[in-house]
Amino acid sequence: MRIALLGGTGDIGEGLALRFARDTDHEVLIGSRDPEKARDAVDGYETELDERGHEATVKGFANEMAADRADVVILSVPPYYAGDTVEAVADSLDDETILVTPAVGMKGDEDGMHYHPPGAGSVSELVAQRAPEAVPVVGAYHNLAAGKLADLDVEFDLDTLVVGDNPDANETVRTLTNEIDGLRALEAGPLSNAAEVESVTPLVINIAKYNDEMHDVGVKWV
Amino acid sequence: MRIALLGGTGDIGEGLALRFARDTDHEVLIGSRDPEKARDAVDGYETELDERGHEATVKGFANEMAADRADVVILSVPPYYAGDTVEAVADSLDDETILVTPAVGMKGDEDGMHYHPPGAGSVSELVAQRAPEAVPVVGAYHNLAAGKLADLDVEFDLDTLVVGDNPDANETVRTLTNEIDGLRALEAGPLSNAAEVESVTPLVINIAKYNDEMHDVGVKWV
Repeated sequence: MRIALLGGTGDIGEGLALRFARDTDHEVLIGSRDPEKARDAVDGYETELDERGHEATVKGFANEMAADRADVVILSVPPYYAGDTVEAVADSLDDETILVTPAVGMKGDEDGMHYHPPGAGSVSELVAQRAPEAVPVVGAYHNLAAGKLADLDVEFDLDTLVVGDNPDANETVRTLTNEIDGLRALEAGPLSNAAEVESVTPLVINIAKYNDEMHDVGVKWV
Repeated sequence: MRIALLGGTGDIGEGLALRFARDTDHEVLIGSRDPEKARDAVDGYETELDERGHEATVKGFANEMAADRADVVILSVPPYYAGDTVEAVADSLDDETILVTPAVGMKGDEDGMHYHPPGAGSVSELVAQRAPEAVPVVGAYHNLAAGKLADLDVEFDLDTLVVGDNPDANETVRTLTNEIDGLRALEAGPLSNAAEVESVTPLVINIAKYNDEMHDVGVKWV
């Protein structure tokens, strides 16, 4: 399969790109609004993979091109860009393309981070509203420890939750995700269950803030 | 210390009563609106503990009496009774009594459970509003697997998150909680962070609903 990471030049996009490239046989495409930036990121990822003896090919494109070539498009952009990014690549999406959204709306104050969903109820539902109707939208990768994911020297044992209204699309994303070493995808139901999934992201940040021994916190459901 | 479990005759109250009685030296008091019901529950708990060779004493009282005698009062009642229960025992509470609330407001539909907080923002904040001002209020024990907790044959490795505006009270509850075998208490900050903690409860129910191999789901923050 071809997996495109739009906004795949930072944060969770970097970690997913490196892990998909290292642990699976799927083709990884990095998208950015600026294709030059995507190619620069790709150079860095390939160096990291090379240094560890992996010959994985990662390619950089403008977002539209990356989306056009991909079977699974992961919107690893900040929540306030999610809707616009979907509309910018809408012509490259169809019912054969799974659109995956990991973004979460949050607001911080001195006590910590708080869940702050858009009017649609969750970013996942916002993305579904802005995407062409036939495109299956899946929420996933919300509560991952981004730093651990992006550091290929770190082995982890983490869960991620998958929500979406198209069971086949959810299953494809779960299967794909389970190919990453140490990552387990669990099903959490339709998009109407997305808010509870997304709201774990401010919580893991708060746990890291208030417990000295914990950094870059992730979750296991047991 | 004396730990009172108000509404300690069912669900999470049962598990906490049994585990505190088995694993710690603290005195466990069971409260109920009907003291007869509390004493019946106590008989059952003592039988269970006896059968496993534990001589722990658990005592049953009306809620007011249990609260009056306790250093830590755990409100293990349904969310819609939490405020009224606090007011019913208010005269038994003072600045030396820590009031702990594990309740979560939820609403179910065919897709799953959804977080449904009261107007105060969270049940923890509602309890703080309804409690006498001097009483330190701590949110804890929201996301525990109640069935596992109540079955003393089950060994677990679970986390629970503690929120509250009085750091000393939070620390007392964390220390107490860590005395239960297999349970780890983590700090999650002030009461204003309670909503993100409480909203994990509908999520663990949804995870159990959508993953065949998972029942009575709990959480480890890693």
